[in-house]
Amino acid sequence: MEKNYKLTIAYKGTDYSGWQVQPQLKTVQGVVKETFKSMFKSEIRLMGSGRTDAGVHALGQVANFKSEISIPPEKLVQALNSNLPRDIRIKECCIMDDEFHSRFSAVGKTYLYYIYNSRVGSPFLKDYSYLIPYRLDFHKMEKAAEGFKGEHDFFGFMSTGSPVKDTVRTIYDIKLQKQNDMIAMEVTGNGFLYNMVRIIAGTLIDVGREKIHAEDIGKIIDSKDRSRGGHTAKANGLFLKKVYYSEDEILKCTSKKTLDTLGALL
Amino acid sequence: MEKNYKLTIAYKGTDYSGWQVQPQLKTVQGVVKETFKSMFKSEIRLMGSGRTDAGVHALGQVANFKSEISIPPEKLVQALNSNLPRDIRIKECCIMDDEFHSRFSAVGKTYLYYIYNSRVGSPFLKDYSYLIPYRLDFHKMEKAAEGFKGEHDFFGFMSTGSPVKDTVRTIYDIKLQKQNDMIAMEVTGNGFLYNMVRIIAGTLIDVGREKIHAEDIGKIIDSKDRSRGGHTAKANGLFLKKVYYSEDEILKCTSKKTLDTLGALL
Repeated sequence: MEKNYKLTIAYKGTDYSGWQVQPQLKTVQGVVKETFKSMFKSEIRLMGSGRTDAGVHALGQVANFKSEISIPPEKLVQALNSNLPRDIRIKECCIMDDEFHSRFSAVGKTYLYYIYNSRVGSPFLKDYSYLIPYRLDFHKMEKAAEGFKGEHDFFGFMSTGSPVKDTVRTIYDIKLQKQNDMIAMEVTGNGFLYNMVRIIAGTLIDVGREKIHAEDIGKIIDSKDRSRGGHTAKANGLFLKKVYYSEDEILKCTSKKTLDTLGALL
Repeated sequence: MEKNYKLTIAYKGTDYSGWQVQPQLKTVQGVVKETFKSMFKSEIRLMGSGRTDAGVHALGQVANFKSEISIPPEKLVQALNSNLPRDIRIKECCIMDDEFHSRFSAVGKTYLYYIYNSRVGSPFLKDYSYLIPYRLDFHKMEKAAEGFKGEHDFFGFMSTGSPVKDTVRTIYDIKLQKQNDMIAMEVTGNGFLYNMVRIIAGTLIDVGREKIHAEDIGKIIDSKDRSRGGHTAKANGLFLKKVYYSEDEILKCTSKKTLDTLGALL
């Protein structure tokens, strides 16, 4: 009997051309599919909750596949981790009912974005944070972040090349925290447009550099004009932290007030 | 006139065969020397506070060299960082009096050691922590750590191949902290024998696995028998955090009670 397996996957995106399978390129989806195939001699259709770009990381990407193969979920975790490269780790496996779909069943996501604000880069965090060697006004950035909360048409916070028609999204929560040279942004919403988190991060950086006024965020969103927002922050600072499949889970996460700057990586 | 330049250097040791120059191998000392030479057409004798092994990292290695070249320290930092690979960063440069020597003037060091205690490894922290997929009793490890404090003959906590005669060292402070799956150890002493920090870490792990009794640390040290201590923990978890050149500085550091598990990397 066919079972519906849900995988929660962490990966370091640095050496991958993103999540989605592409001919001739090493991608996370491709490597997981190939690993499964070489282990079980069986092809799977592995569906992710969404794409991540080259260099973007995941603490908790979710993917599902249906298979006739019968293996206890905890054994599948062990077996896959023994065969996958060390920069991709299966954190969890569950068997779901037949209707579960990693993308269509998702009701929200949390992303993390790390900004390393120092004249000298860190040799340890270079793959995990966007280096900004200029002074940033953190309090202005915090103030500007408030402007993103709620339901808005984020048409102007999307990179071109996306076929999406409905560009209205709700941001439930956005928090900034500073610890020494690191600024962490955590944002939770019901969905995100292509590059939306990176454009929000870039806009907050441009506010910190006093190129954009913190008070103008609402006007910039309403303008639906991509050129009025900030630049698109680099891929290396972005982590897909969590994908939600129930509204309750989102509420629990947004009510937590602390954001542990690097502790999230643990 | 010749000046005595002191450099504070951070590096990710993963892709280097340690600090010390070795023929045919990429080492941190070698890369810094070669970078200086290619920039200033001048050879330097770069002396480090001590060697670090392949895969070991530094947050604050200290090295000094004497040179006729006259360049303001902050300019030298910028110039070197523009030319060095991104996994080596000059954090600071000072001009010292003629007597200063990175190794002989040092009065103490602090090392950090990270243990990642989880059945599933982290794709982000694999180069920065030693993965222990077995249950560790953290409270026993904390208790055992106390046994290392003070002045002892650490002959049994040294790997062979070291020409050192005096094996008495003082550990001023040793702290453990646990945050989710990460255990961080911070140890400060007046000096450390070859592999001593990694053998202490390995011994604490073996205590956590209940292979060694927490109460036996004193006896094991006094036995001066390498075979009675724990295994040598892997190089990837080790960071040289700080080198001290005054007793006051050490006292200030050991009096701080908090150890921020990953925050130290910031």
